[in-house]
Amino acid sequence: MNSSASDPCLTVVDENYSFTPEILDLPAQPGPAACTCPILSHLAEVHRELAGVHTGQVATYIPELAKADPDWFGICVVTTNGGVYEVGDSSVPFSIQSLSKPFVYGLALEDRGRAEVMEKIGVEPTGDAFNSISLDPETGRPRNPMINAGAITATALVEGRTSRMKLDRIVDMFGRYAGRSLEIDQAVYRSESDTGHRNRAIGYMLRNAGILTEDPAAALDLYFQQCAISATCRELAIMAATLANRGVNPLTGAQAIRGEYVESVLGVMGTCGMYDYAGEWLHDVGLPAKSGVSGGVIAVLPGQLGIGVFSPRLDRHGNSIRGVRTCNALSRHWDLHLFNRPGTGRSVIRVRSSAAELSSNRLWNPAEAAILREHGSRILVYQLQGHLLFASTELLVREIVGHDDGVDYIILDFKRVLSVNESACRLLAPLLAEYHASGRTIILTHADHLTHLGRFLRRILGARADEILQLSPDNDTALEACENRLLARLRPPATSPQNIVLKDFDLCRGLDAAELTALGQILRRRSYAAGETVIHAGDDARELFLLARGSVRVVIDLPEGRSKRLASFSAGMAFGEMAALDRAPRSATVIADTDTLCDILPLSAFDRLAVTHPGIKIKLLENLARGLSAKLRRANRELTVLE
Amino acid sequence: MNSSASDPCLTVVDENYSFTPEILDLPAQPGPAACTCPILSHLAEVHRELAGVHTGQVATYIPELAKADPDWFGICVVTTNGGVYEVGDSSVPFSIQSLSKPFVYGLALEDRGRAEVMEKIGVEPTGDAFNSISLDPETGRPRNPMINAGAITATALVEGRTSRMKLDRIVDMFGRYAGRSLEIDQAVYRSESDTGHRNRAIGYMLRNAGILTEDPAAALDLYFQQCAISATCRELAIMAATLANRGVNPLTGAQAIRGEYVESVLGVMGTCGMYDYAGEWLHDVGLPAKSGVSGGVIAVLPGQLGIGVFSPRLDRHGNSIRGVRTCNALSRHWDLHLFNRPGTGRSVIRVRSSAAELSSNRLWNPAEAAILREHGSRILVYQLQGHLLFASTELLVREIVGHDDGVDYIILDFKRVLSVNESACRLLAPLLAEYHASGRTIILTHADHLTHLGRFLRRILGARADEILQLSPDNDTALEACENRLLARLRPPATSPQNIVLKDFDLCRGLDAAELTALGQILRRRSYAAGETVIHAGDDARELFLLARGSVRVVIDLPEGRSKRLASFSAGMAFGEMAALDRAPRSATVIADTDTLCDILPLSAFDRLAVTHPGIKIKLLENLARGLSAKLRRANRELTVLE
Repeated sequence: MNSSASDPCLTVVDENYSFTPEILDLPAQPGPAACTCPILSHLAEVHRELAGVHTGQVATYIPELAKADPDWFGICVVTTNGGVYEVGDSSVPFSIQSLSKPFVYGLALEDRGRAEVMEKIGVEPTGDAFNSISLDPETGRPRNPMINAGAITATALVEGRTSRMKLDRIVDMFGRYAGRSLEIDQAVYRSESDTGHRNRAIGYMLRNAGILTEDPAAALDLYFQQCAISATCRELAIMAATLANRGVNPLTGAQAIRGEYVESVLGVMGTCGMYDYAGEWLHDVGLPAKSGVSGGVIAVLPGQLGIGVFSPRLDRHGNSIRGVRTCNALSRHWDLHLFNRPGTGRSVIRVRSSAAELSSNRLWNPAEAAILREHGSRILVYQLQGHLLFASTELLVREIVGHDDGVDYIILDFKRVLSVNESACRLLAPLLAEYHASGRTIILTHADHLTHLGRFLRRILGARADEILQLSPDNDTALEACENRLLARLRPPATSPQNIVLKDFDLCRGLDAAELTALGQILRRRSYAAGETVIHAGDDARELFLLARGSVRVVIDLPEGRSKRLASFSAGMAFGEMAALDRAPRSATVIADTDTLCDILPLSAFDRLAVTHPGIKIKLLENLARGLSAKLRRANRELTVLE
Repeated sequence: MNSSASDPCLTVVDENYSFTPEILDLPAQPGPAACTCPILSHLAEVHRELAGVHTGQVATYIPELAKADPDWFGICVVTTNGGVYEVGDSSVPFSIQSLSKPFVYGLALEDRGRAEVMEKIGVEPTGDAFNSISLDPETGRPRNPMINAGAITATALVEGRTSRMKLDRIVDMFGRYAGRSLEIDQAVYRSESDTGHRNRAIGYMLRNAGILTEDPAAALDLYFQQCAISATCRELAIMAATLANRGVNPLTGAQAIRGEYVESVLGVMGTCGMYDYAGEWLHDVGLPAKSGVSGGVIAVLPGQLGIGVFSPRLDRHGNSIRGVRTCNALSRHWDLHLFNRPGTGRSVIRVRSSAAELSSNRLWNPAEAAILREHGSRILVYQLQGHLLFASTELLVREIVGHDDGVDYIILDFKRVLSVNESACRLLAPLLAEYHASGRTIILTHADHLTHLGRFLRRILGARADEILQLSPDNDTALEACENRLLARLRPPATSPQNIVLKDFDLCRGLDAAELTALGQILRRRSYAAGETVIHAGDDARELFLLARGSVRVVIDLPEGRSKRLASFSAGMAFGEMAALDRAPRSATVIADTDTLCDILPLSAFDRLAVTHPGIKIKLLENLARGLSAKLRRANRELTVLE
């Protein structure tokens, strides 16, 4: 909602997107205008050049239109990311005329469904003029909703018990598209109504053919009013961008039309939007578009942007001359042709790694760590990104099936996935079911922002969905679950857990019996119940911990009450050793996962060792440094994978 | 080139793509068929269902076509990533008939240019039948290249001194599209030629209108031959996928048509490809398509895939009944409608980080490191990904302009950018020029694979391109360059470089004067010339190095003679300390960057210190461990940024 009209180059809205803010944190406020905006400068250049074109005639078929200043010329481009760029007379209001047709057609589709609308209105282009009276000789339908006969029929199909209610629905809809309530220009409406005899003829012909089932007067009156709705070229660009954005206004987040009908609206714009210039338009400009006799043109690049142009001088087809040339210039210069798109599939997998490279933050004991090193390739993590559509998901499925050999656990990380459609779910669901049926596991992580994903998958998987669908909040949790299952299969049969004795700690490597005894005498044993806090973040560091039994986790607090696990330690490991080196306050909290026994070395005693038992101190320091060195190697390996 | 026809689910080709193999390493060979392919199963399901449809008639207008088995039914889908999925009679050859039209139109465009072709052939859809004899009354042109009159004209426009040479060009072109040389079915050709009276009439009418400038017999003969070219539905799908892939055959990498003409070919397919069913088709199926009277249909989703269907029974429009219904079913099920695309802009920035978080691998001395920590936010790194088109680059430019305050150095990392088009360069170039003009810096890294990028930018930047355009092989080099420039501005005036004395080494922190003297006595000084190797990877570790003057870099060898810098050290730092702890062979090579002086501690002496000077040894170990701990914290910080 934070559209900042004052600086079009920096208008932006974040709320409607599910992306990761730490990756891409767009400025909500305009920054210093240190750089010239290259998009605005190009628009200004096109405007300057085409403002010199004075050919064509302002429409005069209703008197009000003839009052337009023939030199008005505005251009506006709005992206689906909420960027707004405008030059010239982009704030001059004018009546939208035929530009209303695709939007009202969309409303009719929403209100009546595709089938009922298709019974009444065709979708074939016609060589006839927009105000042709002829209907399809075979079906009796108007040939498409962009000619007047089809548009009047669409208006009549809008839901509403009374004309007033229908009009309110139409005006409300335009408001959602434009981002503000649009007015009807009463003078234009009266002029339109006073001179609309040909449209009345069309209305009665539709009544005669049974396409309209009531007296046409009401539908015609509504139609005259919708044509007289007043908007600026900036608003038309926002409306076009809303169509580009699957029906969601990129500046306000309002859903102007259900996404499933957008393709039908753009479909008729693609073949019938520019009168009998539609073929050349789609060939040259390559964008679904619509023009109006008052001089407006909108064009839509699905997924990317909407264009609005306003210049009243028309060519013989009834299209704005500068409007057509502006769209042509922008499409060429910015390569917007719809049929000239690069492939998007390859970037769906951001990183693929195995647990041998990127393991969970649980620090397993040496025997377990060795098993995971050897068998870690049985656990694969796919970090996905972008949009999961048919083509990108096809690649993912092919990749998974192709790396299937010896893989028992797969983690699909959706953190950077922007959207998932149902067709992607149709490809993923059978894979989940097959893995499950063969006793293997696929876990989906970071999927909370994709509200459709679970719903689609559940619907496709049916009764067994709860059993098959495994979701986990993050990769760390999912990885540990997979590691646990893998270890449960591969670990030697568990002996009943015993306390780790001093000589078996990595930290005590190289100490002889006498040294172990001496060290033992200065340790203090302490026990913690499961869930108890062992170390509080922020406390002064006074002790070093040797974990003799149980396991603990290290967590840091994140904003909004969340926390993140940095590591988990099992019996036989030491923790709290960083503070033993730099004596800084504790940087994280340590919590007992299970009932836990710790042998504790007070740092004061550790210090005294330098004097009383320098040999012990040297060996402890060497072991500490070796442990840090191993962790550093692991971190560098992870960096290599991620970078 | 490694298309493996035996397992369609796993066919893949890597050569034509510039993506990072370590990120996405697709299987070149089929893996074990442990998983059922969900794409193939859906194709099989659609095939099973529609095989029950027996309505419609096989074309009989030439006798050879009437010989087709009406129950033939093949479906094939080929993705731009090289995935091939086929079911049913996908290997039955048949004459392509009108399916030849868009491809030959594309060849005419390549041979004559858009302007000359547009003079001869329009691009407007027509309600007329495909074999209509009428021309556009205003221009005398055939209305579009998908009706016979326009197609014959396109054939006549193909370059070639003789008919034989023209035919060879046409057949060669089809070979590039299909991935193998296609034959002309002589029986069909003769049948076509024997009965082609109406087409002859069209030919003479074109000659009469001056559209054909020579006797039409030769063009007609060529046209009959091109219609008789024989292909399978699999090959048609590959041809369609080639159009989806900007003219590059996704299985062979051959350029079948220049990318700039693909949009024109798809444009006429979009409005005129399905006879007078084109409007409903674009509305419902939403894919540019073409059908042929022999029962073939192709459909194209630009950037993503091509579909080929073969089933000879036709509806009253002349389109294959099962073909239309198959495309409809696939488009619905897999959500392929061209006008229903999600936005792609947001994912262009993979990570944004500053030098305060991710610095170069040069380890600066403490004073320099402190400056970089404080001012590191003046250096920003943008890791980009995906395709840089107008909408994605718009977002990037907006992001850069919005985070412009206090930023002096920007690194744009193109490593994961799949393509850059000219319109993206038009947005980037002014930004580069402005940064340069204001004494700031933008460096592009990892851009070698984007051969167009430099060319486009140079052309746009003009005479000052060499000065403005700064390229660097990798982020590490670029970051160090930026750090150097920043330090040059912020560092206190340089005193003439002096050797670092022992007490100023981090490693010697806490040593008293007597201990420093004792340590000094066991150090050996050694000098290295710039470029000289200090440590060889693989050697046994025998020494620990204190860098008293100069700087060194640590490098590892990569495949193909490349190497990667892991770190650089400046005077005052110690290196080779990991081996001092674990005594493993050297894992990397160290090379002197400048003339260098080292104070060397033999590890044998280091060991003896435990006995002779345990106090010194303890302090050295504590300092070593603290250094490792600091590096570990840095690595963890980088991991947080990247993860």
